[in-house]
Amino acid sequence: MKEFFQVLDIDAVLALKEQFECVGHAKIDLNEARGRVLAEDVAAPADIPGFNRATMDGYAVRAASTFGASEGSPAYLEVVGSVTMGELPGFSVNRGQAARIATGGMLPDGADSVVMVEHTDSLDTHTIEVYRSLAPGQNMVSKDEDAAKGQLLLSKGCRLRPQEIGLLSAVGCCRVAVYNRPRVGIVSTGDEVVPCEATPAPGQIRDINTHTLAALIREAGAEPVTYGIVGDRYEALYAAFQRALKENDMVLVSGGSSVGMRDLTLDALESLDQSRVLFHGVSIRPGKPTMLARCGGKAIWGLPGHVTSAMVVFMVLVNPLLVHIGGQRPRIRPPVKACLSRNLASVQGRVDFVRVRLDDRDGRLWAEPILGQSGLIRTMVAADGLVAIDVNSEGLDQGTMVDVTLI
Amino acid sequence: MKEFFQVLDIDAVLALKEQFECVGHAKIDLNEARGRVLAEDVAAPADIPGFNRATMDGYAVRAASTFGASEGSPAYLEVVGSVTMGELPGFSVNRGQAARIATGGMLPDGADSVVMVEHTDSLDTHTIEVYRSLAPGQNMVSKDEDAAKGQLLLSKGCRLRPQEIGLLSAVGCCRVAVYNRPRVGIVSTGDEVVPCEATPAPGQIRDINTHTLAALIREAGAEPVTYGIVGDRYEALYAAFQRALKENDMVLVSGGSSVGMRDLTLDALESLDQSRVLFHGVSIRPGKPTMLARCGGKAIWGLPGHVTSAMVVFMVLVNPLLVHIGGQRPRIRPPVKACLSRNLASVQGRVDFVRVRLDDRDGRLWAEPILGQSGLIRTMVAADGLVAIDVNSEGLDQGTMVDVTLI
Repeated sequence: MKEFFQVLDIDAVLALKEQFECVGHAKIDLNEARGRVLAEDVAAPADIPGFNRATMDGYAVRAASTFGASEGSPAYLEVVGSVTMGELPGFSVNRGQAARIATGGMLPDGADSVVMVEHTDSLDTHTIEVYRSLAPGQNMVSKDEDAAKGQLLLSKGCRLRPQEIGLLSAVGCCRVAVYNRPRVGIVSTGDEVVPCEATPAPGQIRDINTHTLAALIREAGAEPVTYGIVGDRYEALYAAFQRALKENDMVLVSGGSSVGMRDLTLDALESLDQSRVLFHGVSIRPGKPTMLARCGGKAIWGLPGHVTSAMVVFMVLVNPLLVHIGGQRPRIRPPVKACLSRNLASVQGRVDFVRVRLDDRDGRLWAEPILGQSGLIRTMVAADGLVAIDVNSEGLDQGTMVDVTLI
Repeated sequence: MKEFFQVLDIDAVLALKEQFECVGHAKIDLNEARGRVLAEDVAAPADIPGFNRATMDGYAVRAASTFGASEGSPAYLEVVGSVTMGELPGFSVNRGQAARIATGGMLPDGADSVVMVEHTDSLDTHTIEVYRSLAPGQNMVSKDEDAAKGQLLLSKGCRLRPQEIGLLSAVGCCRVAVYNRPRVGIVSTGDEVVPCEATPAPGQIRDINTHTLAALIREAGAEPVTYGIVGDRYEALYAAFQRALKENDMVLVSGGSSVGMRDLTLDALESLDQSRVLFHGVSIRPGKPTMLARCGGKAIWGLPGHVTSAMVVFMVLVNPLLVHIGGQRPRIRPPVKACLSRNLASVQGRVDFVRVRLDDRDGRLWAEPILGQSGLIRTMVAADGLVAIDVNSEGLDQGTMVDVTLI
């Protein structure tokens, strides 16, 4: 058995990201861009909305025409026209004048505010009474209020949410440069593993990890590429790893929790082209027997065999690297606070990730640890989130407020 | 102008969901099922993992053979065989005997635990010393520990995360019954609105809402179907609404924030086949001029024209209905707690939704309100979340801990 010669802590693993290259990018249709990562800065090509726009139904006026107006002492204004939606008004509004306008209409020249229809009365077809005093700019947005021409709207590395899609459509950016979805190869290993569609013989189990990892990869906005199950032979592993590396931006090797399998995987990783094993062993639980090699600019991970361990390692270590190579700027995703429902023991020197169920009870949110070994997928199915117990902690007391990362 | 004759509060709107029908379902490939909603209960067709399985490398033994063993007084066991991965061991282990086994291997008959290789020494090829006393069941999972045959694993209405995909693959469920993605038609309205690819003339603006809503619909796991921009004419609106209702499970009508447009939309909604307008007006801000009609079992929403208002209404009201018609059981998604960075005024009688940016500063998480009118898409781009100010509140003081719903 090879010793864990280079055990790293979480921060050291996360700091390795700079050693890995970003994927390429391409222009795609805006309709396909939700969830993708912007690969260029986008500036406003023109003012948005581009004209002074009413945000209420009423009359476009000069605010000065209404100064001092009240219920008891209304201002009297001459109605000089009506703004048609979507058209340039063919007239202007001077002091003492008003023009009918609906929400979204363009203010005529000379008007600097909109008086709400509720604050007016029609005396005849050409005259209104106004009961309120307006400030300039009231009930309208000015022509560059959403964005001024040339202003930086979105910067490279931004993940496009619905509102960013909206902003891009506002400026007419129908095609947008985004980073490619990272392609992530999954090589499953183990002589005891059979495909999902097979009926396992005694001693065999179905390939859980490939399906679980593929779903995690999709959830991260990347594209899984599966390579089936490779038996416990060095040559087969080596060939599968080489091929997966060539065809993808990152590779996950799944399975192989036995020492023999781990040694075989490590041997194969070490002998890959331009390979450098960066660590094997991480001070977390579950997930200690994780390894990472860099081959050229690409990462190839050896994940623990137990599915729950593999999931935790994916969430804590692999996903941040995937975010990095996908060109994405990390965003604040704060955890949820909950009250621990019972004592939790831990061992110093490693970070423990405990699976918890959330329960909203007695007016507070409880985090209830889920019992069961890390080999059991049902423990993850029962979980709503993970709680990390710090490397220096011997455990947490019942009632402690903990940070829960939702899963 | 038609009065808001039926203004509802949020809870009353949410309670309407029972009036709407659920979409149909179909069997799909497990690889496509992530994020989809299970349309059937799934029970375990067999025990999982199906055999007693080692979770450590070492020797399969009877725990009783090790009782009392220690460094000073080891137990001596006869090695009677070696378990090959993925195969049924062709021998059994009796008291005083041991069999080599790797993580994932099948325990031979007679063995009830695994002693870690680190706690043993080989004396010769047939004899080991054991330095620890084991409990039955130690370092193994029993054959039905992940699931017992017939046990309910997942129930109808469950949204499939990676771990649920893993569990389904473990039981060989390669095809799975899921609810169809709800199809949601989007009809954009307004004479001033032009498509994203057009250059707006003075007074015109690009269609922001269709793109933003389509992205929100995709994010909710549903499928948007767009119907372009319809002008401000009753007949055109009526025809577009009828067609969209026929072809979709739900319809969103976007735009029309002017009173005239809202009246036209309401007229068209009222005259649709089997139509019943359930409300127009909701006591929230932004979003008050929202309306909902039920046509047969389907919902057709009239959303406010300002994009930010439309987004808030989607998140607060439309999305829960979409979850319901998509067959999904609501899950706990607790908000994030943050400290309000400044005073916020509010008006009683409505729930205010304030856009906030999150800032991790001085060791705490701050919610910083974003200024700007609800017509401005940039206010949503700058936001990380929404804070609701209760219907009975006159505002919130700086320093209050608030619940932030991430967006």
